[in-house]
Amino acid sequence: MTKLTFQEAYSELVKLSKKLSYISSLLSLSGWDERTYMPKDGYKHRAEAHAILGEYLYDEWTKDYVGELIEIAKSGDLDEIQRSNIYWWEKRYKEQKKIPKELLIRHIKTSTLAYHVWKEAREKDNFELFKPYLKEIIEILKEEAQILGYKNEPYDALIDRYEPEMTAQEIANIFNELKSETIRLLNRVKSSKKDFRSYVLKGHFDKEKQKEFCKFLLEKIGFDFNRGRLDETTHPFATRILPNDVRITTRFYEDNISSSIFGTLHEMGHAFYEMGLNEDYFGTPVGESVSLGIHESQSRFWENFIGRSLAFWELFYNDLKKFFPQFENVKLEHFYLAINEIKPSYIRVEADELTYNLHIILRFELERDVINGKLSVDDLRDAWNDKFEKLFGFRPRNDKEGILQDVHWSSEMGYFPTYTLGNLNAAQFFYKINEELGDIYKLVRKGEFKTIYEWLKEKIYQKGSLYKPQELVQNVTGERTNPKYLVKYLENKIEGLLSIE
Amino acid sequence: MTKLTFQEAYSELVKLSKKLSYISSLLSLSGWDERTYMPKDGYKHRAEAHAILGEYLYDEWTKDYVGELIEIAKSGDLDEIQRSNIYWWEKRYKEQKKIPKELLIRHIKTSTLAYHVWKEAREKDNFELFKPYLKEIIEILKEEAQILGYKNEPYDALIDRYEPEMTAQEIANIFNELKSETIRLLNRVKSSKKDFRSYVLKGHFDKEKQKEFCKFLLEKIGFDFNRGRLDETTHPFATRILPNDVRITTRFYEDNISSSIFGTLHEMGHAFYEMGLNEDYFGTPVGESVSLGIHESQSRFWENFIGRSLAFWELFYNDLKKFFPQFENVKLEHFYLAINEIKPSYIRVEADELTYNLHIILRFELERDVINGKLSVDDLRDAWNDKFEKLFGFRPRNDKEGILQDVHWSSEMGYFPTYTLGNLNAAQFFYKINEELGDIYKLVRKGEFKTIYEWLKEKIYQKGSLYKPQELVQNVTGERTNPKYLVKYLENKIEGLLSIE
Repeated sequence: MTKLTFQEAYSELVKLSKKLSYISSLLSLSGWDERTYMPKDGYKHRAEAHAILGEYLYDEWTKDYVGELIEIAKSGDLDEIQRSNIYWWEKRYKEQKKIPKELLIRHIKTSTLAYHVWKEAREKDNFELFKPYLKEIIEILKEEAQILGYKNEPYDALIDRYEPEMTAQEIANIFNELKSETIRLLNRVKSSKKDFRSYVLKGHFDKEKQKEFCKFLLEKIGFDFNRGRLDETTHPFATRILPNDVRITTRFYEDNISSSIFGTLHEMGHAFYEMGLNEDYFGTPVGESVSLGIHESQSRFWENFIGRSLAFWELFYNDLKKFFPQFENVKLEHFYLAINEIKPSYIRVEADELTYNLHIILRFELERDVINGKLSVDDLRDAWNDKFEKLFGFRPRNDKEGILQDVHWSSEMGYFPTYTLGNLNAAQFFYKINEELGDIYKLVRKGEFKTIYEWLKEKIYQKGSLYKPQELVQNVTGERTNPKYLVKYLENKIEGLLSIE
Repeated sequence: MTKLTFQEAYSELVKLSKKLSYISSLLSLSGWDERTYMPKDGYKHRAEAHAILGEYLYDEWTKDYVGELIEIAKSGDLDEIQRSNIYWWEKRYKEQKKIPKELLIRHIKTSTLAYHVWKEAREKDNFELFKPYLKEIIEILKEEAQILGYKNEPYDALIDRYEPEMTAQEIANIFNELKSETIRLLNRVKSSKKDFRSYVLKGHFDKEKQKEFCKFLLEKIGFDFNRGRLDETTHPFATRILPNDVRITTRFYEDNISSSIFGTLHEMGHAFYEMGLNEDYFGTPVGESVSLGIHESQSRFWENFIGRSLAFWELFYNDLKKFFPQFENVKLEHFYLAINEIKPSYIRVEADELTYNLHIILRFELERDVINGKLSVDDLRDAWNDKFEKLFGFRPRNDKEGILQDVHWSSEMGYFPTYTLGNLNAAQFFYKINEELGDIYKLVRKGEFKTIYEWLKEKIYQKGSLYKPQELVQNVTGERTNPKYLVKYLENKIEGLLSIE
């Protein structure tokens, strides 16, 4: 062992990392299958298969031998890529080593149980059912935060899992600015009493036709079906099985055309990131996506900044009419208005581009207080409702539309803020593209999506985890995540919408 | 280690065996995915994932520790199930230990290469291209046979992989009788100059309609879609991912209705075996299918003995007409005649119930001579053509329709005879069912497939590998595989067919 040179140790680590990635790929495939084609009763044994392989992956990466290899490799004269890989490997190794296996298993088991109870509680609209499980999850998360360690406050340790090196304080600073600006813009919309004509989206939309139209859009934008698929599911997601095999899913409501279209574009954004990673580095961090906040920036970019733009529908509205002749008598501008309707609502996943972030800010602030010990689970529901009323101006009528609406808290905290970080980063990248490639909507109108994709691929996708998330944002845009870009974008968009007759 | 009791050692083995089965299940899923939904370019990395997990499974089962556990467990006072599991575990352990890893890898690599060359050679109708690879494969197989050891002749060692404890000599005895009887029956058909009216099957059959009809049949027969699926593929297969997740595939030709129907029933038979295994023993031999000759007996039973019977179509012909009105003017008896046309042909997979076995006997005799060193690869093509002419009365016009038609020899020998063993066992079970349940076709006419399935489940499926294949046949039918049942069945069937006006 001590005879290994740092290059040999590094090679060993590459080999192991790749091996475990190949094995994980079968878990990803199985996860995709569970949510698309698995027969109903197949779940009974599937969880066991996942647990066994999951444990194997954990065991392999927490062997002392891995730590020794990292120590040797670190000591060498490394290039940028090697340094980055070792940074992430060491981080993963140390974190996994710190968490005792019993705690890990307790977390997984409690989550599984809590998930089922959450579903029942939501159905029965009864938070009290879920509360003891939420308490247990939060105890586990607090314990993990203590074990992992943190910069300023326990909540930092949880954020770091999804957005490495980001702190709750930095997020709070960003979110506070975004919050006041969002409320200002929301008041602007409210006082305008604008009719967004959402009724033009009502009607019956054949499922097969929707599927065809979504595939049509994907092909036009440049989604490579030799390297990917589109399937149907209940809760849409994107997943990379392996390089050259990236799959997206969507759902089809026959009374709602926008769910499948924008769901597809959202997952396509995630898929573009995965498809654009550097295949040569597959199985090592430099060949993997870097954080949820960056990942979400891509889904939001393609869904909202591109997909909900007027330019996009100037290009595709005639095609949409061919698939759905009911739009024949609807003016393009009115369709554009309808798909961008701003309307505060109880439910996060149904929110528009503007109010979505208020939902996230609410969750972020509550999570932070809970994990830092400033708010007890017993007071959480009231805190939710009070805060919601303050932000939105009305109060949830029940738990289903309030604290029970999201699945996340049955297993995790720290995840939510990455959704809004995604929106913020998307806006920041959007303005950079406009600066470097000229008016992006000119490209969209001409269907030149490839130019946009190639820019993102070169600047973001190909970098993988070479840089930490905020380093990447800095490298691409010249500064860290800054709320002014999203505010500017929303302000422009809203003024445009309000000016439509 | 020496402190383990035999019960503890046995439990350890159960745990390991189950663990590896769960891991294998993800390989099965990936195999299914490759042949159904995987995007075209996905293959590039998938093979690597399979190789890595395959090597892991091999390594785990060949650890000395496994051998030690087996030794301890063997020494105890075991029940029937434990004895059986240990028998198969020891067999697998010893065989895997004997084959050096280099040889294993050489076999896998040569097969992969040979498969691609075979495809090209078949396309170009040029056996010479394939010959050097076939030589190499046969060298490897001969070497493996020597290492594994055998009872009478090297070929035994290869047969044993698919049909444990069966010998070439026993198969030869069975096949010789079957051969002369088949030729006798074939001459009877030839001299009758019967018109099987195969033209009634000609026409255009919408693919979606075929799919619906196949699903309709599966539901009627009792295929549980909560525990299984039907999908489309190029080369149909059945696969169990896990208990409660058994998947079948078929192909649809729009100018041929019988391919999808009988392909589906064939794979359904394989699926029934897998679905009927004892779930409590999943992951151990007693919970697994015992041999290909038994497996194939189930696919042939449901495809031919049930699916191609007059009784079956008495039940379903009106439904078929609803799906495909073109049969409105075709008499049931003529449809029955057409789906049972006896017509010698060059291609095994297109062969009818009678001549199919001649194709197998040809391959069995050639394989036996090649592996036992009595026939060289240089003489194999001529030997094929000579033997074919002797059996069928006409000579292959080219290699595509001759020695290059099957994929099997790009990796294996010893597999082919199990197809005919399947036919023989199916017939033997068929007569036993008639004896124990009364006229099986009465049940079929009433749609009482469940009664038949339950009989097979109790007698065969639930036994898994508790007994060796010939022990199982003996237990179920009172004797080892005996060709007289298949001959009797074919004779009856043919007389019936010839008597139709």
